[in-house]
Amino acid sequence: MQLPSSLLENAVAEFSKLPGVGKKTALRLVLHLLKKEVGDVNRLADALTKMRQEIQFCKRCFNISDGEICSICTNTMRQQNTICVVENIRDVIAIESTQQFNGVYHVLGGVISPLDGVGPEQLNVESLIARIEEEQIDEIIFALSPNIQGDTTIYYIQKRLGAGKCKVTTIARGVAFGGELEYADEMTLARSLQNRLPVQQYVK
Amino acid sequence: MQLPSSLLENAVAEFSKLPGVGKKTALRLVLHLLKKEVGDVNRLADALTKMRQEIQFCKRCFNISDGEICSICTNTMRQQNTICVVENIRDVIAIESTQQFNGVYHVLGGVISPLDGVGPEQLNVESLIARIEEEQIDEIIFALSPNIQGDTTIYYIQKRLGAGKCKVTTIARGVAFGGELEYADEMTLARSLQNRLPVQQYVK
Repeated sequence: MQLPSSLLENAVAEFSKLPGVGKKTALRLVLHLLKKEVGDVNRLADALTKMRQEIQFCKRCFNISDGEICSICTNTMRQQNTICVVENIRDVIAIESTQQFNGVYHVLGGVISPLDGVGPEQLNVESLIARIEEEQIDEIIFALSPNIQGDTTIYYIQKRLGAGKCKVTTIARGVAFGGELEYADEMTLARSLQNRLPVQQYVK
Repeated sequence: MQLPSSLLENAVAEFSKLPGVGKKTALRLVLHLLKKEVGDVNRLADALTKMRQEIQFCKRCFNISDGEICSICTNTMRQQNTICVVENIRDVIAIESTQQFNGVYHVLGGVISPLDGVGPEQLNVESLIARIEEEQIDEIIFALSPNIQGDTTIYYIQKRLGAGKCKVTTIARGVAFGGELEYADEMTLARSLQNRLPVQQYVK
């Protein structure tokens, strides 16, 4: 695709570096911006540079934050003694949008995956263990992806913590709502059977 | 979706103003940029603002240009006496990528559409007519979308030009390559039949 202007070409090239944005989509977006006011385009550009330069990560839980400590960690209405351990910031946003969790988080920044060269030292594991030793924590909830890497990470952290420090749980694996039994994979169905609940507990 | 930072929220809001970008996609793109170097994000932002502020439209054909006159109009290897009339810049890019046209363009900036309040005075029609009167033009090729608005525009401009000024043609309407006859709409198939070609001419 030959473009009639190097400025346009440059903008398209930068846009198409984004994940899932090909050259045609980039061109569509750039031509859209070209029709907008200069102020609108500047606002987009400023929002991006400002976000990248000024955003901070919470020193306690490594969530995205506007300040040193994030709004979840400073919220005294939340149970500061329940930590939900997640892989990344997207998981925090997903759990927050359920509005079912009122504790605090700890963002690991990934999971242990020897094949990808990711060990515990690349993750925020030490800070989690320090946090559990220093603060008064009642429960750790692991909300990691249900795969080998996730399970390895849970196993490693639990080993490091030792027994009896606090309650350690993981979110339930099972057949998803709206999913049909016959299409569920064997692992999920097997876990779903193993972790069956009394009906009274399920409907409460 | 509650985001943990106002900077993040702002960037997501700006991104999701783009066509076809929802809040979830915007968040994915923004979190991707957050993992990139500051320089990479600045390059994207600069490319967008620079493009919007510095890009020009060719004074002759209204194509996008880095200078006053675009690279197609200044190219002496191209036939300056054949004008292809198109609706917008995307059409120029599409025709250029066929590498089958060696003339110059005239970008109307839209088509006549009374229902949308678009008349000839909102389009670059006067400049086209002035161009045809001033320059030595042999042929005008209309490459507009095959619909009522496109046909109205062709009719209007041809009326304004008067007869005998120069050759006026329009790109062929017909069954597309790879298309199956039975799925072609009646209009297209009818036009395809009316404008049938001698086989010698077709395979030449």
